[in-house]
Amino acid sequence: MADKKKRRRAAHDSDSDSDALPFKSKLKPDSVILQTLKNLKASSAASSSKTPTLADVGLSTTCREVTDLPIDEVQYNIGSVMLNLARSILAGEGFSFNVPSRSSANQLYVPELDRIILKDKSSIRAFSNVSTVRKTTITTRILQLIHQLCTKNIHVTKRDLFYTDVKLFQDQTQSDTVLDDVSCILGCTRSSLNVVAAEKGVVVGRLIFSDDGDMIDCTKMGMGGKAIPPNIDRVGDMQSDALFILLVEKDAAYMRLAEDRFYNRFPCIIVTAKGQPDVATRLFLRKMKMELNLPVLALVDSDPYGLKILSVYGCGSKNMSYDSANLTTPDIKWLGIRPSDLDKYKIPDQCRLPMTEQDIKTGKDLLEEDFVKKNPAWVEELNLMVKTKQKAEIQALSSFGFQYLSEVYLPLKLQEQDWL
Amino acid sequence: MADKKKRRRAAHDSDSDSDALPFKSKLKPDSVILQTLKNLKASSAASSSKTPTLADVGLSTTCREVTDLPIDEVQYNIGSVMLNLARSILAGEGFSFNVPSRSSANQLYVPELDRIILKDKSSIRAFSNVSTVRKTTITTRILQLIHQLCTKNIHVTKRDLFYTDVKLFQDQTQSDTVLDDVSCILGCTRSSLNVVAAEKGVVVGRLIFSDDGDMIDCTKMGMGGKAIPPNIDRVGDMQSDALFILLVEKDAAYMRLAEDRFYNRFPCIIVTAKGQPDVATRLFLRKMKMELNLPVLALVDSDPYGLKILSVYGCGSKNMSYDSANLTTPDIKWLGIRPSDLDKYKIPDQCRLPMTEQDIKTGKDLLEEDFVKKNPAWVEELNLMVKTKQKAEIQALSSFGFQYLSEVYLPLKLQEQDWL
Repeated sequence: MADKKKRRRAAHDSDSDSDALPFKSKLKPDSVILQTLKNLKASSAASSSKTPTLADVGLSTTCREVTDLPIDEVQYNIGSVMLNLARSILAGEGFSFNVPSRSSANQLYVPELDRIILKDKSSIRAFSNVSTVRKTTITTRILQLIHQLCTKNIHVTKRDLFYTDVKLFQDQTQSDTVLDDVSCILGCTRSSLNVVAAEKGVVVGRLIFSDDGDMIDCTKMGMGGKAIPPNIDRVGDMQSDALFILLVEKDAAYMRLAEDRFYNRFPCIIVTAKGQPDVATRLFLRKMKMELNLPVLALVDSDPYGLKILSVYGCGSKNMSYDSANLTTPDIKWLGIRPSDLDKYKIPDQCRLPMTEQDIKTGKDLLEEDFVKKNPAWVEELNLMVKTKQKAEIQALSSFGFQYLSEVYLPLKLQEQDWL
Repeated sequence: MADKKKRRRAAHDSDSDSDALPFKSKLKPDSVILQTLKNLKASSAASSSKTPTLADVGLSTTCREVTDLPIDEVQYNIGSVMLNLARSILAGEGFSFNVPSRSSANQLYVPELDRIILKDKSSIRAFSNVSTVRKTTITTRILQLIHQLCTKNIHVTKRDLFYTDVKLFQDQTQSDTVLDDVSCILGCTRSSLNVVAAEKGVVVGRLIFSDDGDMIDCTKMGMGGKAIPPNIDRVGDMQSDALFILLVEKDAAYMRLAEDRFYNRFPCIIVTAKGQPDVATRLFLRKMKMELNLPVLALVDSDPYGLKILSVYGCGSKNMSYDSANLTTPDIKWLGIRPSDLDKYKIPDQCRLPMTEQDIKTGKDLLEEDFVKKNPAWVEELNLMVKTKQKAEIQALSSFGFQYLSEVYLPLKLQEQDWL
């Protein structure tokens, strides 16, 4: 039946004759590829049990990290901060907060942890100082609002928070900045504060989880998939028979894989943030990796931004380095599209794009980053990109047919264990 | 129990004492509001059976529209176009397409239909003419690719389509433009061509539907909701006990309502495109409205862009006027935030924003648009906005407490039947 269809297609359109697809002949039976993936999963599960902590690398006294805290502990911590303030005032020592510094001078990439963390510098934010009185007031107000959110146990966005007191905050960057400070002061993640980011990620495939009490089966989410919930603390009970997680940079590639139900041929969970990773998707990816012990393979564009996106998932953004332990997913493998794939898979010249000056600069900057340097194979790929000055989107594979990605490229990549 | 909780809250934080919320005392019991909504639904169902068509308003010969076609008809139409081409060549009359014009001079707003439609002007796109030879070639190639998509019955994005022949298309605007031409030539919607836009909308609430064969219950989608599928032709079997559809402009308001499970208190379906309406969300909204016969109430920012977004849902964008019949949802009510709400609900001054010059210009331009003019109450609201030069986001309601939107503002609006 399938054969008949194929012949019918081939008869009036030789382009779509999949037997003619480049490299298709190299594909082994799916059972062989599945065995490869089972081995990958087993080795990933064996290695991931020993994720090092700050204490393991002897940094627990000189670096700081926040953790997920239940809301009653967040409230308790706010209470403690306020009690200390009151004591300080009564002792005649005034009204001030001790705020951990989040400046880049206070940040550190730790190779053993493979992520950016925050060192222990902090500063005094005093009410009596004319240069800090405003920030001190804002900090107090944010602490009050967070306390209220915890009492009601509801979630709001940063924008909501800003609007509760526009007169004081003036513009949203002010309340946003202090919100990050408050995370550091209380030693908890921003999610623990019940302040969430707008969601934009979607997930589909071999995953069952609970979202606010509802059980979601992601194999039964059609082509659209399930929107990733903004509040990770109400996500739980993850179950899966997947062999790996496929992290996809772009929407279009996600759609292709969802429509082709790629996850039924190779049991996997497919997830995308549709471009720049948002906090909700980063938290969700980490939670999957941790609870399910699955390897993560990434499919991004072959350009500096693809690698940058990979790095945000993998070792965090500088902006939220205080929370890197909760936001980052260790050991993400770079599956494709890699600069070396362009020649290897004979991507036609007209589907490659010349890198702009800015692209090349970003590429060279990335070569200086620790998270790239620690992986010599990545350095080699990035060097090739900067040398050839060529980039390509995942979509470039469509030049071999719309389903080349799901039918040839990815299966072959998996078969050859061609990830770095 | 609820009372006790409230008192506990009031005891240590008077801001959050919901009894003190402005206008809360005006709220009647939910049963009264529900009856209002039942009446609205009944009247909406009675009126929506007679949506006028081009023929009803005597325009079927001078205006053109596309319709949803099954893929075998799309293929048949492509076949006919090609046969006619062959006949024309054999008859010595050369190789040319007759392409409907999509320029703004060929567009018309029809008050009886309440949407923008395309008039019947068209032009000859000839292969033998040096100025149109490229476009003729691109048109032929796109027709071939669409034929291929129909044979395989898969969906791709415009970006995928572009990448199948970068050498010919050169840049994506060229293949995109011709794709719209091809819709007009074949007389079918872009969805019928199996070319879909990236999805960004989400839906939650009292709706059950099938997505590519999977049954989705949107009351059991947690807080994240269900991602709206990119391909409307695989969406079906809609069932609902909702009394109305709540169309929300922004993500944050959607999240608030989803977390508070607003749809359980007032049975409704909540949908958002997270800003600018995308094609998938517009098609989904229309399908809900048509299949379920439900009134649609819109919650947008009180600024010119809020109204503009409302107009795109309601009567279409100029860019896709050839498909306005399928993309637009008739009779959307403007629930809020309306310019008159700012004073009525005593939105504090610091939560209102001054309109920029550009805002005011956009507002004045909107006053000239037919879709605004046909609704005198809308004109009045817009005049007020332009006069006071003030705008406000939905989030501004957070100044009365994070849940003011779901607990007071919306219930009161519904109770007072305060929509236009």
